Amino acid sequence: MASGMAEGARIRQRNLGEVLRHVHADGAVSRAVLARRMGLNRSTIMGLTAELAAAGLVRENIPRETGRAGRPSLVVMPEPERVYGLAFDVAVDRLVGARVGLGGRVLERREAVRARAGVDLEDVVEVLARFGRELAASAAPDTVCVGVGASYCGMIRRADGMVRYGPQLGWVDQAFGAELGAGLGLGLPVEVGNEAHLGAIAEYVRGAGPGVRNLIYLHGDVGVGGGIIVGGKLLDGDGGYGCEVGHMLVNPFDGRPCLCGSRGCLEAEVGEEALLDYAGRADELVGRDGIRAVVALAESGDVRAREALDRIGDWLGVGVVNLINLFNPALVIFGGMLRDLFHGVAPRVHARIDTHVLPVSRKGVRLAVSALADDTTLAGAAELAFSALLTSPLDTLAARST
Amino acid sequence: MASGMAEGARIRQRNLGEVLRHVHADGAVSRAVLARRMGLNRSTIMGLTAELAAAGLVRENIPRETGRAGRPSLVVMPEPERVYGLAFDVAVDRLVGARVGLGGRVLERREAVRARAGVDLEDVVEVLARFGRELAASAAPDTVCVGVGASYCGMIRRADGMVRYGPQLGWVDQAFGAELGAGLGLGLPVEVGNEAHLGAIAEYVRGAGPGVRNLIYLHGDVGVGGGIIVGGKLLDGDGGYGCEVGHMLVNPFDGRPCLCGSRGCLEAEVGEEALLDYAGRADELVGRDGIRAVVALAESGDVRAREALDRIGDWLGVGVVNLINLFNPALVIFGGMLRDLFHGVAPRVHARIDTHVLPVSRKGVRLAVSALADDTTLAGAAELAFSALLTSPLDTLAARST
Repeated sequence: MASGMAEGARIRQRNLGEVLRHVHADGAVSRAVLARRMGLNRSTIMGLTAELAAAGLVRENIPRETGRAGRPSLVVMPEPERVYGLAFDVAVDRLVGARVGLGGRVLERREAVRARAGVDLEDVVEVLARFGRELAASAAPDTVCVGVGASYCGMIRRADGMVRYGPQLGWVDQAFGAELGAGLGLGLPVEVGNEAHLGAIAEYVRGAGPGVRNLIYLHGDVGVGGGIIVGGKLLDGDGGYGCEVGHMLVNPFDGRPCLCGSRGCLEAEVGEEALLDYAGRADELVGRDGIRAVVALAESGDVRAREALDRIGDWLGVGVVNLINLFNPALVIFGGMLRDLFHGVAPRVHARIDTHVLPVSRKGVRLAVSALADDTTLAGAAELAFSALLTSPLDTLAARST
Repeated sequence: MASGMAEGARIRQRNLGEVLRHVHADGAVSRAVLARRMGLNRSTIMGLTAELAAAGLVRENIPRETGRAGRPSLVVMPEPERVYGLAFDVAVDRLVGARVGLGGRVLERREAVRARAGVDLEDVVEVLARFGRELAASAAPDTVCVGVGASYCGMIRRADGMVRYGPQLGWVDQAFGAELGAGLGLGLPVEVGNEAHLGAIAEYVRGAGPGVRNLIYLHGDVGVGGGIIVGGKLLDGDGGYGCEVGHMLVNPFDGRPCLCGSRGCLEAEVGEEALLDYAGRADELVGRDGIRAVVALAESGDVRAREALDRIGDWLGVGVVNLINLFNPALVIFGGMLRDLFHGVAPRVHARIDTHVLPVSRKGVRLAVSALADDTTLAGAAELAFSALLTSPLDTLAARST
């Protein structure tokens, strides 16, 4: 073919990216495993890893004693400090910035409490941009920032990181990505993602479901978000606004009012406000601590707390049932405040599943809590920061190093 | 790379497949358009189309007067009779078999009414296998059957076409694909798919949403099925059992009983039985004709028929709302009996959308009825029949010609 040369170069970049993705996700992976996963022979893999090692992105070590006969396959590991990504998280109660190394290790972090409402774009950007500048300044001089990712609790326009709709902070059409990029002054674009989408990616890459190609991640804070991995890829829909699990209409009759203006949405029926209200503790408790307190009360025999959890669990079960029937996933992961809540509501969720999920899908699904705990969304933002590097390693490194 | 030669051959097969897919879907497409879509130069495209023409799969014609200056780009069209696929449809009230040419044209068909219940595997296979043998026998001697696809109203195991669960015929774990393959005696495997999944593929390839990469197809017969295209691919889930839209729990309180054993499922609330029941016509009307009659009654002023449609439309709206919030699709297509029903229920569906769908997703979505009408599922089965050819044209043709 006339385009054979260009095609060859493209295939090589793609293969370099695939090797680096495996190394980044697994932490340490042998050449033999890489060859098997990628369907390439070991000499081709050796050429690829040598090129990545020469660029300072990976190192190769002799593995510890394997107990097997024969020449051991060299283990390829990420160089965690040659390149880094900046990751930011605008969560319900805090602002976080981190410098993250290849392989996903948090090298350094900054964190601040934030008010739960009435925080505008300038306030958030000012804090995060300062964090980012400090983090970049503290990196060693020969290291390279390869990308910036940010997690936000709202609906995000893919193209430019515009927050289209973020009811918890009252944001509509706020240019978060652009403003944060300007504030950082690194000359890099900021990739912004919805917190639950990013949580799903993080749990898929290095959390509760590594390699589980069909999984659902449910993220609770004040509301409920969803991130759905379909065939190994995030479901984002036509404009990037998919997975709005929290606005599934579960109670069509006399539902609780929702921040979106509707009633009976899943997040209205299972959110923090509903739980504290049903438990009769809305005046004294608040936030994640409040949720943990209600779960503890129920465990110690408080009847009203137990009934509140059952009621919440029943509605959460309706949502989970519908997701399993629609997506036939292998795994459903509960993160954020749903992680705290899960233990207390699991019996009712399972009861709904037993009653309403079709048997063939019921047999194949497992429920779990987030493995990355409170860092799930930050870890997802780091994945965004690394996405260019993991697609075209050498091109990206060259572009960022100038 | 050591595997450069094999890689080159693989790329060529992939490119041949991609050219053939465009020609098959579009019916006629110029070399210039192919070059643009595939990002290849025109001489590469010419080489590919020449190879497909030599194999008898496409022909190239000079287009009609274009009105433009310059050399016209040759138009590539499918040869509809060199190869064919056999497509079968086990629909709610009929059995269909067809010989379908490349490009999707039905060359010949056989159809039989079937009873709505109490039909077992042997009965269905006997009729369809006879259709298939007759259709194959009537093909010209130099033509080649490249594949067999079948649509079934139930949950299908991908690997072997086993009907895991087909409540409308009362089938559980019936080896439909294997038995039909044996009955045909062509030495070809039978690919079986769920009717709504296949309907979605057909509408995406050549129906109401050609090229719309995020669309939802809702198929009504006695129940309601769904086929969901996410990023240009069918959502099938971990075991192939995804998209069970009909068993979305929309009425968690006092829902109507469903064939699946649960209550309040979407298909129970919007199905034929519910409609005829609410309209007070359950004793006199049945099937698609019954549904059309209720829509006609409502249009002519029958209050009870109008109220029945409103009630059905309201529940259907709940289901559609949840799908739009979850999938952020560009298009929702109503097929099967929902096509007949759509006109009568659209106001209520739109009302639910206006109330409950998040604005950013609401703006981007359009509702439509199936463009392929009663042949949607059969057309989807034909796509299954052609799938091997459209992946590796020359290899598949060689394998089937021996």
